[in-house]
Amino acid sequence: MLRIFLSSLLLAASCLAQPAATPASTPASTNVRGAAFPVTHSDNRVTFRFKAPNAAKVQLQPGGDDNGLGKGPMEMTRGADGVWSITTPPAVPGFHYYWFLVDGVIVNDPASETFFGWGRQSSGIDVPESGADYYAARDVPHGDTRIHWYFSKSTSAWRRAYVYTPAAYDANPKKRYPVLYLQHGSGEDERGWTVQGRANFILDNLIAAGKAKPMIVVMDQGYAVLPGQPAAPGPGQFTAFETVLLNDIIPTIDHTFRTIAKRESRAMAGLSMGGMQTLQIALTHLDTFAWIGAFSAPQRNAFDPKTSFGGAFADPAAFNKKIRLLWLGAGTGEQRIHDSVVVLHDALDKAGIHNVFWASQGTSHEWQTWRRHLNQFAPLLF
Amino acid sequence: MLRIFLSSLLLAASCLAQPAATPASTPASTNVRGAAFPVTHSDNRVTFRFKAPNAAKVQLQPGGDDNGLGKGPMEMTRGADGVWSITTPPAVPGFHYYWFLVDGVIVNDPASETFFGWGRQSSGIDVPESGADYYAARDVPHGDTRIHWYFSKSTSAWRRAYVYTPAAYDANPKKRYPVLYLQHGSGEDERGWTVQGRANFILDNLIAAGKAKPMIVVMDQGYAVLPGQPAAPGPGQFTAFETVLLNDIIPTIDHTFRTIAKRESRAMAGLSMGGMQTLQIALTHLDTFAWIGAFSAPQRNAFDPKTSFGGAFADPAAFNKKIRLLWLGAGTGEQRIHDSVVVLHDALDKAGIHNVFWASQGTSHEWQTWRRHLNQFAPLLF
Repeated sequence: MLRIFLSSLLLAASCLAQPAATPASTPASTNVRGAAFPVTHSDNRVTFRFKAPNAAKVQLQPGGDDNGLGKGPMEMTRGADGVWSITTPPAVPGFHYYWFLVDGVIVNDPASETFFGWGRQSSGIDVPESGADYYAARDVPHGDTRIHWYFSKSTSAWRRAYVYTPAAYDANPKKRYPVLYLQHGSGEDERGWTVQGRANFILDNLIAAGKAKPMIVVMDQGYAVLPGQPAAPGPGQFTAFETVLLNDIIPTIDHTFRTIAKRESRAMAGLSMGGMQTLQIALTHLDTFAWIGAFSAPQRNAFDPKTSFGGAFADPAAFNKKIRLLWLGAGTGEQRIHDSVVVLHDALDKAGIHNVFWASQGTSHEWQTWRRHLNQFAPLLF
Repeated sequence: MLRIFLSSLLLAASCLAQPAATPASTPASTNVRGAAFPVTHSDNRVTFRFKAPNAAKVQLQPGGDDNGLGKGPMEMTRGADGVWSITTPPAVPGFHYYWFLVDGVIVNDPASETFFGWGRQSSGIDVPESGADYYAARDVPHGDTRIHWYFSKSTSAWRRAYVYTPAAYDANPKKRYPVLYLQHGSGEDERGWTVQGRANFILDNLIAAGKAKPMIVVMDQGYAVLPGQPAAPGPGQFTAFETVLLNDIIPTIDHTFRTIAKRESRAMAGLSMGGMQTLQIALTHLDTFAWIGAFSAPQRNAFDPKTSFGGAFADPAAFNKKIRLLWLGAGTGEQRIHDSVVVLHDALDKAGIHNVFWASQGTSHEWQTWRRHLNQFAPLLF
């Protein structure tokens, strides 16, 4: 009966005349309105379809080597109708970037929303995680995510931040809130934490359950080019972003929003490149931030408690007194990064620096790891 | 000297090793960060590039028959490096959807942002209009555009609206504002007026200049499926959206935002399909809306002042007394729609119904027409 119901639902939802999917399958939440495929199956297999009658070869390319859809490129099979299809093995739950290779050309799936990653707009699919509703839109009060434009004096350019204000923000016009500055990874931008990461729903659910304090979350782009600097990505961009964050973003946010503008109420966290930026910037500005989170941030240099991160750890007792939280995370599926973070964690422990390490089981260098990280990290703040 | 400077700038901005563009050309504002192409030239020609060494044929396909880039598909030329390129004739200023056809397959330009239109995420390019800064990010106070989630009881589903709040909204927590409900066209969604239309910048500039009253602008998706209805697009969707707008969206907005919740402070407008929805919904609910705008809304039925639009015009004197503004617009480049709107305008005039018609010179069924329409319409409100 359930099978019949779901099949009917799929047929009804389809704008295109396509055969019914395997029973107990559901169009992905990441599809555009009305698209019947791709579908996720109850055992986490995923079926993709793409119409290309004249192509000689069509492949599914998951984004990245450790993508939860599997290793690519995966050969798709041509049907008599010119529709190519593939059903993957059971996927790791969570969000995965993907695209098609049509005779070698990168082609987004027209049935998928696009997500800014890999330095371009890519297709993506969200494979539901059984029992996990912490990032779902639930029947709780919802905060807004504001698209906020401001002028950056450091770069002489208009910039756009995504700013989450908690559900009660408007109803309490005298109340002030702590702020989490939350950064995306390389090739992504200020939209990532909202669109891929569902940070707004994670915060809504935590705040509604009383598990996290109401807070403002500022998600900005981790790129900047100062006048006279080359625009190409590189270490210079970290320095430029540091300048913009400290001189433009934080003052703008403190001026525009009802923040508690002091270090004890200001956190910084980020994923991958954003985690590296967080460690570089926050650890060298302990008078600005008191809460620090690095999600899947690879450590490339040998750690020296006396000199690393500008000597932030040279006096462990002073550091422990000043910093309220130093939180490190990784996924067990991203072994190289996981191991490098564990090395840092162990070295910090050995040096007597208070810090937390939390591993996401079975997930890799992907958004499901970072959704879980945020869900673990935010309740510890403020 | 300027030529040398611009060439250097382009080379510096390019992530890819590509030859310098024609002098006096600029990477499009719609490009992803760091992409050197497409470029717009000072005479409004546009140069596109796409790397596909193994393709037999690559074409530029402007979206729609009356696209300001020209009629497609246009043949692109293969360079020795496998990069295909084309320079169009001078384009009509404004935003144009486009994509590439690579051996017949629709492929988005990886160098372009994506824009939801044509029922999918498409590439788009903004060709600057000389002297037009009304939709530019200027040095004026900026409102936020809020991504606002709410539960629709009518459809039993979570929905997302984009809600513009004017710059002074937060600083005046007791002040209440009139509301414009502003709808997108067919194949687009609630993001269109912000991303393609730049409605936030248009309102920022008008409000800062004292030309428009500060107002809230609600941009929602013009689609809905009521339980038991088919999901396929059709006239039923208009009725379902009407139900959602009247029973869910307006009450939610009046509850959540500081609105002036009465008809004299409530407007509805929309473009194309959204204009048709506006006429259908607002004209049959004159107790809800007092200001009405239809931008490029084709009129398919013969107008009868006694019976059309539920008989809204049956008593011209009563209508004129009740409705503060009935505004119709079209572009001179979209002749069929332009002419059908003029027929309606003339019939309304003949029936003694107060109404305004405004033609956008030289633009077609595209966003530059609707940017201009909003820029003309908003100052007349409230």
